[in-house]
Amino acid sequence: MIARPSSSVTARVGILGGGQLGMMLAGSLYKLGADVALYDPDPHAPARRRYAHVTTAAWTDRAALARFFSEVDVVTYEFENVDATVITELAGSIPFRPGLSVLTTTQDRLAEKRLCRAHGLPHARFEAASCADELREVGRAFGLPFIVKTARGGYDGKGQARVVDEASLDRAAAQLFADGAARRSLILEEIVPFTMEASCIVARDAAGRAEVFPVFENHHERHVLDWTLVPARLPPAVADAAREIALDAARAMDVVGLLTTELFVAQAGAGGRTVGEHAIFVNEFAPRPHNSGHVTRTATTLSQFDALARILCELPLSSPRLLNDGAFVMGNLLGDLWLERGAPHLAFEEWARHPEVLDVVLYGKHEARPGRKMGHFVAHAPDPSQAIDAVAAFRRALGQAHPAG
Amino acid sequence: MIARPSSSVTARVGILGGGQLGMMLAGSLYKLGADVALYDPDPHAPARRRYAHVTTAAWTDRAALARFFSEVDVVTYEFENVDATVITELAGSIPFRPGLSVLTTTQDRLAEKRLCRAHGLPHARFEAASCADELREVGRAFGLPFIVKTARGGYDGKGQARVVDEASLDRAAAQLFADGAARRSLILEEIVPFTMEASCIVARDAAGRAEVFPVFENHHERHVLDWTLVPARLPPAVADAAREIALDAARAMDVVGLLTTELFVAQAGAGGRTVGEHAIFVNEFAPRPHNSGHVTRTATTLSQFDALARILCELPLSSPRLLNDGAFVMGNLLGDLWLERGAPHLAFEEWARHPEVLDVVLYGKHEARPGRKMGHFVAHAPDPSQAIDAVAAFRRALGQAHPAG
Repeated sequence: MIARPSSSVTARVGILGGGQLGMMLAGSLYKLGADVALYDPDPHAPARRRYAHVTTAAWTDRAALARFFSEVDVVTYEFENVDATVITELAGSIPFRPGLSVLTTTQDRLAEKRLCRAHGLPHARFEAASCADELREVGRAFGLPFIVKTARGGYDGKGQARVVDEASLDRAAAQLFADGAARRSLILEEIVPFTMEASCIVARDAAGRAEVFPVFENHHERHVLDWTLVPARLPPAVADAAREIALDAARAMDVVGLLTTELFVAQAGAGGRTVGEHAIFVNEFAPRPHNSGHVTRTATTLSQFDALARILCELPLSSPRLLNDGAFVMGNLLGDLWLERGAPHLAFEEWARHPEVLDVVLYGKHEARPGRKMGHFVAHAPDPSQAIDAVAAFRRALGQAHPAG
Repeated sequence: MIARPSSSVTARVGILGGGQLGMMLAGSLYKLGADVALYDPDPHAPARRRYAHVTTAAWTDRAALARFFSEVDVVTYEFENVDATVITELAGSIPFRPGLSVLTTTQDRLAEKRLCRAHGLPHARFEAASCADELREVGRAFGLPFIVKTARGGYDGKGQARVVDEASLDRAAAQLFADGAARRSLILEEIVPFTMEASCIVARDAAGRAEVFPVFENHHERHVLDWTLVPARLPPAVADAAREIALDAARAMDVVGLLTTELFVAQAGAGGRTVGEHAIFVNEFAPRPHNSGHVTRTATTLSQFDALARILCELPLSSPRLLNDGAFVMGNLLGDLWLERGAPHLAFEEWARHPEVLDVVLYGKHEARPGRKMGHFVAHAPDPSQAIDAVAAFRRALGQAHPAG
């Protein structure tokens, strides 16, 4: 790490992970004059193609991790599957943000739901199980239908099954222990008949001062985030309640950094926290910049990355307000588009033809894979339905611009 | 340079210069998935602290420059004082954008004005001189008052003098040859009694397709850009004429990349191109991202950096439109603030208290010097005078936040 100039902020910030979240955070940190070091085992990590200080070493390489920690003033992470025991050993006096207890809670779906229960945060009824037999037994007592998930690991729909009858209960038991493991921590959850998925990001500094972002409406396809709309199409009282829940969660965990709360909104009467005709449930938490938050790069006066950068550099936050009336939308660009259609990233003619598309970001990933997040775009339109239409039209155009040969 | 992934655009882009303009351009190129290499003789160049591929070598190091050119697909530059003869030798078949003839024209104020004359672009009356005696002789014939500038080199008010009488003519002659040079190319220009300084950026691709940015109003203090307001407070017909002049200039030079045209606006009757009660004059050109254009990072649907990045990657442009009603303003943060006040970059409490400030960018320069551009900020307000007030208030607050001890 080279010497820090006197005209920059004092922070040297370490980021565990050199994917798109780490890279975009690094950009915000550099904008404050901070120094940044990233750590990623993947020699093809996008950050490595760009940034000066990237360590390529395994998550289990204690010597490399120790060196990394010794060269920075504060450490954060871009994904929550960091090995907490290793960090416990290494962090020492270096602030690790959000802290270890936040990391361990959000690494475990059972711990998340227990935290909700302890702090009065609305959530779906849940139960724990730890082996195939217990899953069957607890599942029958719990009542069908339900969703069963591994408590740890798994994302974008991996490591979960929907149980609607005895046959699917057997399938789930087989599937979740297909690797031969005898025991595995599982969570059974009541299925929330949601009408909307939403998320709400809270930025909270070491002094407990917090800013809450506007509520995002999220649409998933095959368990992967497809688009995010802001503001969410919710009555103001429901959005306010969602923001309050997100803030309460950040306080309950004493988050210093970002906490994204993923929420379900359902019709009132199904449990959760009732607001007028709606009910809100916490789904899960992510203690880091969130895919849905990419929309804030263009839509709000403070982006999720700028907010986290300021917290890490111990600079005050400002309130993230929407930059314009109407609706902003973020659409993910997945690897499927590359695999099916060749080189959609070259179809920028389409971008020029869709002036409502304000920004396209490509992460520079080494190779396209199905469902892999390769980039995203942000568009603005006078109203939500036009914004959603713009996503579909732009993505269709990208896909059709370079038909597979 | 590491291997390019198949999922990125094909360009490997070389940037001569690793200051703030090169860095912000690199950010836009990375956002397209391109690879970037920067070249700067300064071991403290801000780019070096951040980016993976920065060559630190002298501008006269032909071997280092040749290696740099051999590793990229296209080369651009962040400032126009690049040695054109060296580039002529090295560029070979690598596109150099904007091209050598643009560079040599914009390196020379006489060549710029002659180009204006040849292409009917409005400009102040001018004359050439090349030694102290000729300056006196030509100056007397030209008529007082006038401004005399070195044709090459000099920026931010350096290398120029205002001549109002015989005594100041002698002082100018002495000052401009103070280094003992016998001959130096000079340009004498009539003083335009301008009421506004403005600039207009044109982005133009290799096929000649161009996009013209909104006109910026620029305010200088001691010859250094202080703030930029967009849209400029001009009648629409005057702004349209300014954009047309800027576009004509870009076409006249066959610019592939960005051309910034700096303009004077005066009252009609003083020469120039008359539009209603106003007259427009070209002041000078810059074939690169421009300090005034920083406002586009926040104010327009396409930034100057994104526009140049797309041209370098051979991707189509879209139209840069203002993102909101009202006025956007960019304020420079100069080294004086650091020298006089300690660490104003740490006064982000002020930022939080000035919610109209949307973004602050610090360049991470090694040391503060008087007049040195250390960073900038962008604010938005409902109308131009509130925007300008916001600049003053924010800057005052930064300066007062950390009084010199």
